[in-house]
Amino acid sequence: MAGNTLGTIFKVMTFGESHGPAIGVVVEGCPSGIPFDMELVNRDLQRRRPGQSAVTTSRKEAEQPVLLSGVFEGKTTGTPIALLVYNQDHRSSDYKDLKQLFRPSHADYTYFKKYGHRDYRGGGRASARETVARVIAGAIAKMVLSRQGIKILAYTHSIGQWVCSSIDRSTLDTSIIESNVVRCPDIQKAEEMEAGILQAKSEGDTLGGVVKCIIRGVPVGLGEPVFDKLHAQLGHAVLSIPACKGFEIGAGFASTLKRGSDLNDIFEIKEGEVSTSTNNSGGIQGGISNGQDIVFSAAFKPVSTLLKKQKTVTKSKEEIEYIPRGRHDPCVVPRAVPIVEAMAAMVICDAWLMYKAMK
Amino acid sequence: MAGNTLGTIFKVMTFGESHGPAIGVVVEGCPSGIPFDMELVNRDLQRRRPGQSAVTTSRKEAEQPVLLSGVFEGKTTGTPIALLVYNQDHRSSDYKDLKQLFRPSHADYTYFKKYGHRDYRGGGRASARETVARVIAGAIAKMVLSRQGIKILAYTHSIGQWVCSSIDRSTLDTSIIESNVVRCPDIQKAEEMEAGILQAKSEGDTLGGVVKCIIRGVPVGLGEPVFDKLHAQLGHAVLSIPACKGFEIGAGFASTLKRGSDLNDIFEIKEGEVSTSTNNSGGIQGGISNGQDIVFSAAFKPVSTLLKKQKTVTKSKEEIEYIPRGRHDPCVVPRAVPIVEAMAAMVICDAWLMYKAMK
Amino acid sequence: MAGNTLGTIFKVMTFGESHGPAIGVVVEGCPSGIPFDMELVNRDLQRRRPGQSAVTTSRKEAEQPVLLSGVFEGKTTGTPIALLVYNQDHRSSDYKDLKQLFRPSHADYTYFKKYGHRDYRGGGRASARETVARVIAGAIAKMVLSRQGIKILAYTHSIGQWVCSSIDRSTLDTSIIESNVVRCPDIQKAEEMEAGILQAKSEGDTLGGVVKCIIRGVPVGLGEPVFDKLHAQLGHAVLSIPACKGFEIGAGFASTLKRGSDLNDIFEIKEGEVSTSTNNSGGIQGGISNGQDIVFSAAFKPVSTLLKKQKTVTKSKEEIEYIPRGRHDPCVVPRAVPIVEAMAAMVICDAWLMYKAMK
Amino acid sequence: MAGNTLGTIFKVMTFGESHGPAIGVVVEGCPSGIPFDMELVNRDLQRRRPGQSAVTTSRKEAEQPVLLSGVFEGKTTGTPIALLVYNQDHRSSDYKDLKQLFRPSHADYTYFKKYGHRDYRGGGRASARETVARVIAGAIAKMVLSRQGIKILAYTHSIGQWVCSSIDRSTLDTSIIESNVVRCPDIQKAEEMEAGILQAKSEGDTLGGVVKCIIRGVPVGLGEPVFDKLHAQLGHAVLSIPACKGFEIGAGFASTLKRGSDLNDIFEIKEGEVSTSTNNSGGIQGGISNGQDIVFSAAFKPVSTLLKKQKTVTKSKEEIEYIPRGRHDPCVVPRAVPIVEAMAAMVICDAWLMYKAMK
Repeated sequence: MAGNTLGTIFKVMTFGESHGPAIGVVVEGCPSGIPFDMELVNRDLQRRRPGQSAVTTSRKEAEQPVLLSGVFEGKTTGTPIALLVYNQDHRSSDYKDLKQLFRPSHADYTYFKKYGHRDYRGGGRASARETVARVIAGAIAKMVLSRQGIKILAYTHSIGQWVCSSIDRSTLDTSIIESNVVRCPDIQKAEEMEAGILQAKSEGDTLGGVVKCIIRGVPVGLGEPVFDKLHAQLGHAVLSIPACKGFEIGAGFASTLKRGSDLNDIFEIKEGEVSTSTNNSGGIQGGISNGQDIVFSAAFKPVSTLLKKQKTVTKSKEEIEYIPRGRHDPCVVPRAVPIVEAMAAMVICDAWLMYKAMK
Repeated sequence: MAGNTLGTIFKVMTFGESHGPAIGVVVEGCPSGIPFDMELVNRDLQRRRPGQSAVTTSRKEAEQPVLLSGVFEGKTTGTPIALLVYNQDHRSSDYKDLKQLFRPSHADYTYFKKYGHRDYRGGGRASARETVARVIAGAIAKMVLSRQGIKILAYTHSIGQWVCSSIDRSTLDTSIIESNVVRCPDIQKAEEMEAGILQAKSEGDTLGGVVKCIIRGVPVGLGEPVFDKLHAQLGHAVLSIPACKGFEIGAGFASTLKRGSDLNDIFEIKEGEVSTSTNNSGGIQGGISNGQDIVFSAAFKPVSTLLKKQKTVTKSKEEIEYIPRGRHDPCVVPRAVPIVEAMAAMVICDAWLMYKAMK
Repeated sequence: MAGNTLGTIFKVMTFGESHGPAIGVVVEGCPSGIPFDMELVNRDLQRRRPGQSAVTTSRKEAEQPVLLSGVFEGKTTGTPIALLVYNQDHRSSDYKDLKQLFRPSHADYTYFKKYGHRDYRGGGRASARETVARVIAGAIAKMVLSRQGIKILAYTHSIGQWVCSSIDRSTLDTSIIESNVVRCPDIQKAEEMEAGILQAKSEGDTLGGVVKCIIRGVPVGLGEPVFDKLHAQLGHAVLSIPACKGFEIGAGFASTLKRGSDLNDIFEIKEGEVSTSTNNSGGIQGGISNGQDIVFSAAFKPVSTLLKKQKTVTKSKEEIEYIPRGRHDPCVVPRAVPIVEAMAAMVICDAWLMYKAMK
Repeated sequence: MAGNTLGTIFKVMTFGESHGPAIGVVVEGCPSGIPFDMELVNRDLQRRRPGQSAVTTSRKEAEQPVLLSGVFEGKTTGTPIALLVYNQDHRSSDYKDLKQLFRPSHADYTYFKKYGHRDYRGGGRASARETVARVIAGAIAKMVLSRQGIKILAYTHSIGQWVCSSIDRSTLDTSIIESNVVRCPDIQKAEEMEAGILQAKSEGDTLGGVVKCIIRGVPVGLGEPVFDKLHAQLGHAVLSIPACKGFEIGAGFASTLKRGSDLNDIFEIKEGEVSTSTNNSGGIQGGISNGQDIVFSAAFKPVSTLLKKQKTVTKSKEEIEYIPRGRHDPCVVPRAVPIVEAMAAMVICDAWLMYKAMK
C-alpha cells in the first residue's frame, strides 16, 4: 500500500494535480534496450484526452509529453523513465466554489477530512486528469510487452442499458473499436450509445457503462499466488481508476448463476498443445495465466458532476443547493478504454518480469 | 507483488500445502499490547472448517491453531505473531491421479507449467485449505480493529439463482447470519439455498454465489489514492480468495444502469455530522472511506470439482475421462463468508495503521 | 530492493541523468499541512553544488528547483511532491571518450555490462549529479522532522590523514561547520585539510575522508527490528551515496578493540529520565533509538577521476592510456556533508512515521 | 522498512522469541526445482549454535530444524518454504530480573519503551537466538546460488587486538577456517585469539572483532542503483545482525587514507576478459558487481552481558547494581561467521533474481 506507486519490479510512481503546473510519471524497472515509441504514447494520450468528440467534455487539455530521463538515443537505458505533461487551459475560477462545498459522490469531502489541507481546484489530485500519467506508463509497459507478442485491447461493452452484442473476440481489432466515438465494436449499438449519451447530456445528466479488456499472447505462468494472483493484481489496478466500481474476470458475477458442470473449462489438446474448449476462467486458473486470452470487465459509474441542481453541504456544515460550472464528461466510458488498457499493461508487464526472475 | 505476503504495515505471510505437515501464518506489524483472543481465532476457524454441515464437504480437517510467537502473557508484543495448524485426515491416495492429469478449471495445469515441480496432493499450495491461514490472520486484524470500534460482517447474498431479499443492513448481526448453515440472513431464502445445494450435490454438481460484506465504524480517511484506493485494496485481497471471480463496491455493476442523478449520494447533515442520504458509493469516495458503512460484494464460482465424469487431459497430452475421488464441497459460499471477513479485516487494519502514520 | 525508490511510508523516487534534460525527485508519504520551506531546499542545494569553492570542481550546475506538485498555498497536501532541477552547462564533448572506454573505479564498465545500452555522457545515471535529488528529498524530510524537534547535523571528520580533533558534540552547530570550505568544525584542522586538498589537486590527484553525522532530538523507539534496525536503515541509505565505502554507528570498528566493560553504556537517571553515561552505542540499542544523540560515520573514498594519465581498457578490450578532460572535484567530502544529512533525514522521517503508525 | 521481512523477490520473514515455543523462518520467492539440502542447513546451524567450544556459551540450544512447507520429494516447489526450530533448555529463571531492570547496552530499555509490553525472558525477540532463522534462510539462498557457481566464505579477521595476518584470499577455503574454534585462517593468530577470549572470559569480560566475507563467482551486473547498490543492500543486511556496529566494502575506511592514484583499480585484460589489477572496490563499482570477488568487513562489538557487576537502572527508575546470571558468550565473533554468510547469501540471491528479471 504505497498510494502513488504501483508494481514491484516494473514500478510506476505518479504525481501532479489537475490545476498544478504538471502531471508526471516515473517508471522504474523497465528493461534497457527497448525502442522508445513516443508515437504510441501520443496515440494513447489522444484516445484519453478530453474534447475528442461530442460525447466527451469540451475542455481541452494540453497533452504534450516531455521526456526527462531514462531514454538515450531512442532506446531505454534501464534507469527511471520520467515524463511530464504540463497543465494548460485552466479555468480555476470554475472551481472556486469547491473551496467551500463538497460535491456529491466526489472526493472533496474525503480529501478534506483525510488531508486537512488540499488543492481543491478541479479536484486536485483526485481529478481524472491524473490518468494522463497512467496512460503514459501503460504505453511504456506496452512497449515491453509487444516484444513478447502480448497485445492488450479494451473496448466499450455497455453504456447504460445499451449492451454490445455478442462479438467475435478472436477477430476483434483496434480499427473497429476506434471506428466510432464510443469505442464499441458493435457499430449499430455504438450509434445508440452515442445518441443515449447526447440525450443524457442535454438533460444535464450522465451515464456509466462497462469496459471489457482482452489480453492476447500471455504465456502460461504469469501471476503470483496466493495473494497476488494475476486477476487480483488486475482487479487492484483497474479498481483504482476513477469511477470504477466493479471488476470481474472471465464469467465473473454471471458464473454464480451457473452450475459447475456448465462453467468448467474442459481441457483439450489443440494443435498439440493443452487448451480449453471454453474460457469462462478468463485466461487465469489458480491465479496464474493459462495461455488462453485473458478477459476481464470493469464497471464505471455515471459521472458524478451533473449540469443540474443538486443538494449538498459546505465545510461549515450548511445544507445548500449547487449547480456545477465548467465543462464535464457526460460519460467517461469511451475515455476509460485506453486507461483500462494502461492499467492492464502495467500489471502484465510487472508479472512478466517476475515470471522471468523465477524461471 | 509478493505472492505470499499481503499488506504494508500490517503484513501477513502464509505458507503450507494441503497435504504437507502444516498450514501457517506470520503476522508482523500488529501493534503491541492487544489482548490476544484465541477464542475468536477458533470461532472463525470453526466457521471456515469443512464438515460443519451437510452443505459442505464431509472431509474433516484438524484445526487446532498453535501459537508460536508474538504474544506474551496474553497480549501481543509488537513482534511477529506466528500460528500453525497441523494437517491431518489426509487421504493422499484420493489424489494420486492428480500427479498425471489436470482437473478442469483447477490450478493443476498452471502450477505444473509455472513451477515445473509441484506438490500435486490435494491441490498442494492451491488448495482452499490455505485459507486457514487467512482466517487466522483476519482474526488478529479483527482484534486490532475491535478496539477502534470497527466491525466486519459478511453473509451469503445469493446461491445460484436464490437471492437474499432486501434486508435491513443497519440491524443485521451475526446471530441471524449464523442461524442457518448457508449463512444467509433471509431465513426463508436460506432454506431454499440449502435445498438447492443438496439437490446439486445429489447430482454430483456444484453451485456458486455472492457474498456481501459490511464494515461498520470505519472513520473518514482510510485508503491511499491514487493506486491504493481503499476499494482497490479490498478488491485485490478479496479476488485472491480461491474461486472468487468478481468484486464490486457499493452499487457496483448495477450502477452502470443508473443515471448520475439517481446514483449520486447526496450529502446532508445528520446529528451535526456530514452524512449521505444514500450509500451507492459503498462507504468509499475518491478511494477514501467516508464514514458510511463500507459495503462490497464478491462473486464465487461453483466448485470446479464435480462428482461426475468430465473430460480432461494428462501431462502426456492424452485426452481422457475422469471422475474425482475424495470429499468435496458442493458449494463454497457458506464457508467463504468468514474468509471474506478475514481479507477485509487485514486490509482495513493495514489502512488504519497507515492512516495513523499520516495523522 | 527497488533501485530508485527509498522508504516505506515516506517514499522517495529519483530520476535523471547527468546530461539529460533534468534531475528530479518525487516524495510520497509526506504528511499534509507542513509549511514548504523552499529556502531550506535552496540552502542545502547550495551546500551540495559544485563550484562553491576552490576545493570543489569549477563546473557550475544550474540548481533552480522547480516545484511541480504536492504543495498548495505554501503547505504540503499529502499528495506526491515532485521537484525538478534542469541540467545546464553541459560540456558533453568532454565525455565523448566515455562511449568507448571504462574509467578506472567508475561505474562505466558495470553499467555497460548490466544495462547494455547506457547514457555514457558525464556518467549518466551514475553521476554524482543524481545527488541533487537526494538533497531535495532530504530537505523535505527535514521539514517534517523539525516540527518534532529533530535536528540533523553532519560535518567533515577527516580528509586523508587530517582528522578533526575531539570537539564538543553537544554544542556543535551549523555556523562553525559552515565557517570554512571543508565543513570541519575544528578550524585549525580545516585549514590543513584545505591545503591538503589543493596540494593533491595541483598534482592531479584526489583525497577521501570521513563524514560524521549527529541526530538530535530523536524520541526513544524509532527503528524496526530485526532486519530494519535503525542503524541498518541508516547504513543502507548512506552506503548508497556515490563514493561511500563504509558506515559505522557509535564506536563502530573501534569498539572491536575494547572490552565489554569499557564499551557498555551504563544507564543512569538524569533529570528524572533514563539516560546513559556514555554513548558508544551511538544512540541506538537493539536497533531502536534510545533517546541519546544518534552518531554515525561514513567513509568516502578519494575521487576516482584523476587529472593525470591512467591505464584502462576499452569496450573492444584494448588496453590504453587515458587522461580525463572536464572539471572534477579533488575531494567530495565537503560536498558529501549535506548529502549525508539528506539520507539520514529520509531514514529518520520514514522511521518516525512507522513509529506513529504503531503507537 | 518491514522489520521482520528482508528482500524483494527472495523474501525472508522470521519470527520467534528466545524463550517462546520456537524460532521460525519463511522464505518465499525461492525458485522451484532446487534440491533441498538439509545437511547444509544443519551444518550451518552447527556452526552458529552455542556450546560448540570453550570460547562460546555453554548454553545448549536444540537446533533440529523442522521443515513445514515448500519442498516436495526433495526439491523446492516455488511456494513458501517454512522451517521451525523448537526452543529447549530454557532457564527462564535466569532471566526474571530482566522484567524489572535494563541491562546496559542491551535492547531491554528500547524494547520496553517502543513496545510497552514485551517478552523480557532471555531478551525475547532481541535475543541472538533469532539468528537461527537467519542461518536457515541463508542456507536456502546458498542452495540457489551454488547452482550459479556463487560461493560465500566468511572468517574471523580480528578478535580484539589480534588481527589475522595477510592471507591469500584466492586459495582460502572452509577447511582452514573451520580448523580452529575462532574460525580464523591464520592458525597462529587463531591460538592467540582463543587464549585472549578465555582470558577475558575468566575475568567476566568480553571481546569483539571483525568478520570478513568473500563472495566468489558473482557475475557482472548484480545490484540496483541508485539506492539499492549491492554494497548498500549488503550493509543493510549485515548491520542488522545483533552486535554489528560497522560495515565496509573493499578498502572501506582505510581508503580514506589513500590518494585516488593509489586506490583506483586499474582495468586490464586477463584471459580475454576485462579484469582489475587490484580490488580496492571490493568487487562492486557504481553499486554493481564487477566480476571480481566481493569483499566486505563487519565489526562486532564485545558482548554486552558481562559476568561481573555493573551499574544500571530499573523500570521504576532506581539506580542499582547487577550481576547477570545465565550462560553467555565471551565473544560472538566465531559464531557470527555463519550469520554473516547467511545475510550475504540472502542479499546476493535476491539481487541475482532481480538481475534475471531485467535480462
